[in-house]
Amino acid sequence: MPRAELLETFPNPYPGRGYEIAMECPEFTSLCPLGGIESDATELQQLEGGAPDFGTIFITYVPGDVCVELKSLKLYLWSFRNDGIFYERAVNRILDDLAAAVRPVWMEVVGDFNIRGGIKSVITARVGARIP
Amino acid sequence: MPRAELLETFPNPYPGRGYEIAMECPEFTSLCPLGGIESDATELQQLEGGAPDFGTIFITYVPGDVCVELKSLKLYLWSFRNDGIFYERAVNRILDDLAAAVRPVWMEVVGDFNIRGGIKSVITARVGARIP
Amino acid sequence: MPRAELLETFPNPYPGRGYEIAMECPEFTSLCPLGGIESDATELQQLEGGAPDFGTIFITYVPGDVCVELKSLKLYLWSFRNDGIFYERAVNRILDDLAAAVRPVWMEVVGDFNIRGGIKSVITARVGARIP
Amino acid sequence: MPRAELLETFPNPYPGRGYEIAMECPEFTSLCPLGGIESDATELQQLEGGAPDFGTIFITYVPGDVCVELKSLKLYLWSFRNDGIFYERAVNRILDDLAAAVRPVWMEVVGDFNIRGGIKSVITARVGARIP
Amino acid sequence: MPRAELLETFPNPYPGRGYEIAMECPEFTSLCPLGGIESDATELQQLEGGAPDFGTIFITYVPGDVCVELKSLKLYLWSFRNDGIFYERAVNRILDDLAAAVRPVWMEVVGDFNIRGGIKSVITARVGARIP
Amino acid sequence: MPRAELLETFPNPYPGRGYEIAMECPEFTSLCPLGGIESDATELQQLEGGAPDFGTIFITYVPGDVCVELKSLKLYLWSFRNDGIFYERAVNRILDDLAAAVRPVWMEVVGDFNIRGGIKSVITARVGARIP
Amino acid sequence: MPRAELLETFPNPYPGRGYEIAMECPEFTSLCPLGGIESDATELQQLEGGAPDFGTIFITYVPGDVCVELKSLKLYLWSFRNDGIFYERAVNRILDDLAAAVRPVWMEVVGDFNIRGGIKSVITARVGARIP
Amino acid sequence: MPRAELLETFPNPYPGRGYEIAMECPEFTSLCPLGGIESDATELQQLEGGAPDFGTIFITYVPGDVCVELKSLKLYLWSFRNDGIFYERAVNRILDDLAAAVRPVWMEVVGDFNIRGGIKSVITARVGARIP
Amino acid sequence: MPRAELLETFPNPYPGRGYEIAMECPEFTSLCPLGGIESDATELQQLEGGAPDFGTIFITYVPGDVCVELKSLKLYLWSFRNDGIFYERAVNRILDDLAAAVRPVWMEVVGDFNIRGGIKSVITARVGARIP
Amino acid sequence: MPRAELLETFPNPYPGRGYEIAMECPEFTSLCPLGGIESDATELQQLEGGAPDFGTIFITYVPGDVCVELKSLKLYLWSFRNDGIFYERAVNRILDDLAAAVRPVWMEVVGDFNIRGGIKSVITARVGARIP
Repeated sequence: MPRAELLETFPNPYPGRGYEIAMECPEFTSLCPLGGIESDATELQQLEGGAPDFGTIFITYVPGDVCVELKSLKLYLWSFRNDGIFYERAVNRILDDLAAAVRPVWMEVVGDFNIRGGIKSVITARVGARIP
Repeated sequence: MPRAELLETFPNPYPGRGYEIAMECPEFTSLCPLGGIESDATELQQLEGGAPDFGTIFITYVPGDVCVELKSLKLYLWSFRNDGIFYERAVNRILDDLAAAVRPVWMEVVGDFNIRGGIKSVITARVGARIP
Repeated sequence: MPRAELLETFPNPYPGRGYEIAMECPEFTSLCPLGGIESDATELQQLEGGAPDFGTIFITYVPGDVCVELKSLKLYLWSFRNDGIFYERAVNRILDDLAAAVRPVWMEVVGDFNIRGGIKSVITARVGARIP
Repeated sequence: MPRAELLETFPNPYPGRGYEIAMECPEFTSLCPLGGIESDATELQQLEGGAPDFGTIFITYVPGDVCVELKSLKLYLWSFRNDGIFYERAVNRILDDLAAAVRPVWMEVVGDFNIRGGIKSVITARVGARIP
Repeated sequence: MPRAELLETFPNPYPGRGYEIAMECPEFTSLCPLGGIESDATELQQLEGGAPDFGTIFITYVPGDVCVELKSLKLYLWSFRNDGIFYERAVNRILDDLAAAVRPVWMEVVGDFNIRGGIKSVITARVGARIP
Repeated sequence: MPRAELLETFPNPYPGRGYEIAMECPEFTSLCPLGGIESDATELQQLEGGAPDFGTIFITYVPGDVCVELKSLKLYLWSFRNDGIFYERAVNRILDDLAAAVRPVWMEVVGDFNIRGGIKSVITARVGARIP
Repeated sequence: MPRAELLETFPNPYPGRGYEIAMECPEFTSLCPLGGIESDATELQQLEGGAPDFGTIFITYVPGDVCVELKSLKLYLWSFRNDGIFYERAVNRILDDLAAAVRPVWMEVVGDFNIRGGIKSVITARVGARIP
Repeated sequence: MPRAELLETFPNPYPGRGYEIAMECPEFTSLCPLGGIESDATELQQLEGGAPDFGTIFITYVPGDVCVELKSLKLYLWSFRNDGIFYERAVNRILDDLAAAVRPVWMEVVGDFNIRGGIKSVITARVGARIP
Repeated sequence: MPRAELLETFPNPYPGRGYEIAMECPEFTSLCPLGGIESDATELQQLEGGAPDFGTIFITYVPGDVCVELKSLKLYLWSFRNDGIFYERAVNRILDDLAAAVRPVWMEVVGDFNIRGGIKSVITARVGARIP
Repeated sequence: MPRAELLETFPNPYPGRGYEIAMECPEFTSLCPLGGIESDATELQQLEGGAPDFGTIFITYVPGDVCVELKSLKLYLWSFRNDGIFYERAVNRILDDLAAAVRPVWMEVVGDFNIRGGIKSVITARVGARIP
């Protein structure tokens, strides 16, 4: 299961200015849920049915009091590696976990997943109000 | 004929959040209508007149209560393979069939078709109001 | 001279929906006017002065009651082949001829012409009000 | 089944010169064989198992006495549309059929197929000796 | 010195329609001012200090009563070739000269200059109000 | 008909050195032969059947005593504009006409033609022996 | 550990012709060996040290009596997912396992790995003699 | 430490016009802070822990009374070379130093940093109100 | 006239090893000869006829005892700025001047010139024998 | 000074097979020598004259008994950061240091440096004999 407790933060060095942080994480991988059930897959199950999914996660936010620490974000995204999870849930889950850890003014998470069955999927979710 | 009954849905896992799902389907193919008549073509007719059309279908929507199931979408798009249909009708038909199955907050279908007679065509249709 | 009478239309299959049709015609060619006079050029004149122009015509419109028939559009654009005409006039003329034939809700014509004398030109003209 | 009898030729206009003709056909489509059996698939079977394959066929040859007629080549390639056939067989079959019809000095057929199961395949076969 | 008197115009063939003309001039060159003084440089001075600058000038405008003649624009831009002039002044000077000659509804001039000292510069200036 | 008499040459300024001249002519256009007969087409015939062809001609050669004059080459290529001619013949004809005018050590002509009926064609012909 | 026993083959449909099969597998992932020891990593170890590696595996071969079955190749490559293995060993191991299963006339395996520590690595290994 | 005193300005040659200056500086480098402490690193420390960071700095502004002198900007950006500094602080610091020196109507600084640990970061900060 | 005396050299730091130096100079400019006469053009002549030419010069060589000094090469290439010279002569002249100054084991000069009259030209000349 | 003693190796896991390892290091930086003297530059000197150089180092080799350890290669390349060194010397020095540490069957080092004074340089050096 994704391990939100891995996420760490550090104080925003410019808290009074509404600036923007964007991160591109091109090495996201999880497993396709087996039989429609989202769960941890054993290696055997994986070879028999639950295929690996690959994608790029784009995270953009206007920080409030804290920023997410880059190395902890990397470890958090690695924790999806052997989970069975649908695209829609993965993107919204990352948004929920990050927003809970960082409490941003505004945050957007985009999951841009590799082609499967001839179809490419991109999921985009947001919290907060963007200052235009 | 396109088989809308192939489309299946699953409950939106995050129904309270207005997030966006975008799908790119680069392997759409149908037939050019024979003699201006839209219909199923036999293999013979096809070789004598009704040329194959190729294109990419882009589908973007904000889900309401349900999301479209990816594999069923693939089967639905395959069902145009041996139909004679005009570009304008194909795109609007896909929008109608998907919107009826998913009842989205907002949905856009774009058909980006390969060059024919030295001219490339892109058709774009939408239903619902996009929340900016 | 451009032959607007070649343009044919067919009834809009989805007249109640404000959808968009975009066409890209990368093989437009006409002649540069000889001595500043726009006219049909003989082959001889062409070799002595009126150089061929090349460009791509982009046409985008929201159809009203009718759509332009693709093959007739191709023939209409071919009819500029041996005409001497300035870029500005060609683009506005295509817009006038197409708008008269199709009576669209909104229409834009862009002429993107190849480099001449080290300068590239793009002309854009529109009629009607775009629904945002 | 692919219909080699559709291929037509015309006399090589420059038979004494060893020149090269290359053709790129980006709209090739066939079906994946059902249950490993290569055969014609019904529409129903196709929706239940035999997925469509898509690819680009590259044909390069040095003509001998005749050249392949372009429109007949297009019709021949269309005749694979509803056949179940493996990539390796499709490419070698096209090479055999074309080489039989054209009897070239040298010929190469490349099939560059779209990604399936996260893997992209390219098959290359040749007959005759290329003059360097 | 830039020679604005080279600019010629012709009557706008569609004066009642607010259309747009865009020109891309990728072969602009001038000299870097010597010792901070903007002036004509001799060949000797140039080799000793004032380095050549290169860039692309983009001009976009909505014509009023007249359009700029393409060949005269080319000659006008050539007249910067042996002048020492700063980027900021060159772009604003071109805008002033063209706007005085054409009296456009709206005009924008962009100077996109090649990298110097590891830094690339783009200057953008406008006159008039763009009709959205 | 292509007018080889338009081709002019000038003396090779470095006749003792086997250097290479390559030219790319992206604005070649001719007509597709009507009913398979290669001939000059009237404007009417053209609109009824003989479609325009477009392509890029690449010419590379090692000059002997003379080089081809660039402006005369442009006029020569323009002279195909209203001719009905097959791809294979056009490329070999250009090679014959140029080789007769320039008598090069080695020459290659490539015709890279736009997609027709979903198929793109490239024809390559050579005379002389290339010094490696 | 990589599971070579997953690889399956099918008889080469054109055994008498020396044709070429190329496969591009862009979704390869394994783990960086922990403390320099190549072994299976637990999820915990992975989060504490052994970082995931990502890359594309290119496989090209001239088949002998058999071809590798595509789906079994996919499963075989998935079996590296939770292994700690160095780049050099992974590429040579894939070559050994595939060559043992397929006994090709010639085979090349290229591993093109994502940037690590600011450095990108590509490993290329071959067996057999390529027929030119 | 970054040396803001290196920044020099010159009078805006067109102070009455709200034009825009954009600069792209692709050769920015600093050091990753050692042990989370931002400071100057010795060469030894650098080799033991504080890795170099690389990125592109984009600066866009509408000048007020003065413009930044290009060569002084280059020297100022070089002064980060041996400093340990976080991405967020670097971008905001550059914005503060430049805005203090130039007092622009509006200014934006974007830091687009190279991939680290499989993640790419882009930081964007602004001061002043952009005139649309 | 091009000023070969500007070229300076420095001793090859690794004279015993046959390594290769390649330089790309994208900002070459000269003038088109007026009335076919190659000569220095006044500013007036230039505006009346002799148009500026632009191109990229690629120089590759295996040094013998000396290497060309980069800044002196830049000044040498600038000295073509106000000369009227044909493409063929410019490239061979640069090769002669550089080879005389550097006495390389092998040297190649390529002039890749911007499109003129719809035709792009590339000239390639070499001296010496390349060690394969 | 570059610190060759930082380079570490590990035993080649497949010593009997002549395979190839290629590494791309896009973040190389050193200083331009001050006053033509190659030496370590202080920060002050650097700001007054010795400008930073940036480039990508490509290393390709066929290993003998050992391979270079990736992290030690990164530290070795970092050790050029504050050195004043010419391009030609840097590339040959890296080749000498690496070849001494690894004793490869064949090795090539390419330094692809950023544009300076409008000129881009690429240096390529090799040791050993490549097995074709």
